[in-house]
Amino acid sequence: MEKKAVVLLSGGLDSTTTLAIASQQGFELYTLSFDYGQRHQREVEAANAVARYYQVERQQTVTIDLRAFGGSALTADIAVPHGRDLDEMSQEIPITYVPARNTVFLSFALAYAEVIGANDIFLGINAIDYSGYPDCRPEYLQAYERMANLATKAATQDGRVFHLHAPLLYMSKADIVRKGTELGVPYELTWSCYEGEEFACGTCDSCILRLNGFAEAGQKDPLKYIHISA
Amino acid sequence: MEKKAVVLLSGGLDSTTTLAIASQQGFELYTLSFDYGQRHQREVEAANAVARYYQVERQQTVTIDLRAFGGSALTADIAVPHGRDLDEMSQEIPITYVPARNTVFLSFALAYAEVIGANDIFLGINAIDYSGYPDCRPEYLQAYERMANLATKAATQDGRVFHLHAPLLYMSKADIVRKGTELGVPYELTWSCYEGEEFACGTCDSCILRLNGFAEAGQKDPLKYIHISA
Repeated sequence: MEKKAVVLLSGGLDSTTTLAIASQQGFELYTLSFDYGQRHQREVEAANAVARYYQVERQQTVTIDLRAFGGSALTADIAVPHGRDLDEMSQEIPITYVPARNTVFLSFALAYAEVIGANDIFLGINAIDYSGYPDCRPEYLQAYERMANLATKAATQDGRVFHLHAPLLYMSKADIVRKGTELGVPYELTWSCYEGEEFACGTCDSCILRLNGFAEAGQKDPLKYIHISA
Repeated sequence: MEKKAVVLLSGGLDSTTTLAIASQQGFELYTLSFDYGQRHQREVEAANAVARYYQVERQQTVTIDLRAFGGSALTADIAVPHGRDLDEMSQEIPITYVPARNTVFLSFALAYAEVIGANDIFLGINAIDYSGYPDCRPEYLQAYERMANLATKAATQDGRVFHLHAPLLYMSKADIVRKGTELGVPYELTWSCYEGEEFACGTCDSCILRLNGFAEAGQKDPLKYIHISA
């Protein structure tokens, strides 16, 4: 019997590449997406398209109400920055930071993993892509894993051990594109842009990082962009 | 200026007593409740009534979809046990266990605390009331706190330190009733029963623990019960 894995799937470049890696490792795939009041539905649709492509066992979208708390350009009525270069992005934690987002997402992944009998949770976080998000660092992941193994009936009564897998943790965006290209990731189905228009904007931090990654990897991004500043 | 605290409030005996303790300690109170597909609304109504009584700064209810995962008598279509004695309850983790519940709840509390500028999070968990829930143990709490202080911009960029307060952790149910009575907790507003009828059933694990606590403390529970087996 195949081992089950829960894979956090936003439908972006990183989480889709992570799903491809989990698939290659032979896991039975249970993807988990969140509709958390991000300002567009493009992300949720991309996640569904990617899940279909990988013929996952089950794609589950959980609606959560992070909007109620405010505090982020991705969930509140705050403008997303455009046209910043990589140096500017590396200065501080951006206003697109969503408070405790990965902690909330992982908590649902843990609950889901416990119920379906999965011990492995994959997430596409990355410590070095200029994001500066505190919940994308290895020490955070280790602390989360330790907590998870004290939190659940699965771990304390049934002897199961949860493992968090973050295969992109130390990869640059170009490395990720190279790895994904090697694995045949359908990047045309993915969505990274912080805006929710018909075409990707090409100028928000997320678009710039993505375009830069493709350029460095010598690959062409199959997505359509309004502007390509690179 | 008063320090802010987020208090997890289910509207039950334990969380309401915890709110009373946080109030006594002079915190500005932000209560957080969850509508997580538990099978009745009595709990949510009790939380609102208690929050009004304590004149909290803000009472926030977050709807989350734990039903989608199944796996618990509190969220799925599984019968809650009735008529068990305290010995039977202490044998194993009960089927009313909700996978990773406190981990999910604390993650929202952390996000909320970060946004409103609170460093203190109160929760009414208890390690010795026969519950056997893994996420009610001190080692779990410590691991959670450690993770929380690596997870957030508040902690890593702004130097804030999050503290989890579980003032009931080592108290028996009778101790909790004594403490609450001393603080004037309006127990008639609270709701502990796993069923959602007009009167508390008196025979589910939660009612039995509560009634036993009042009896041991020599107090009368102001709630109306269908059966009192004690």
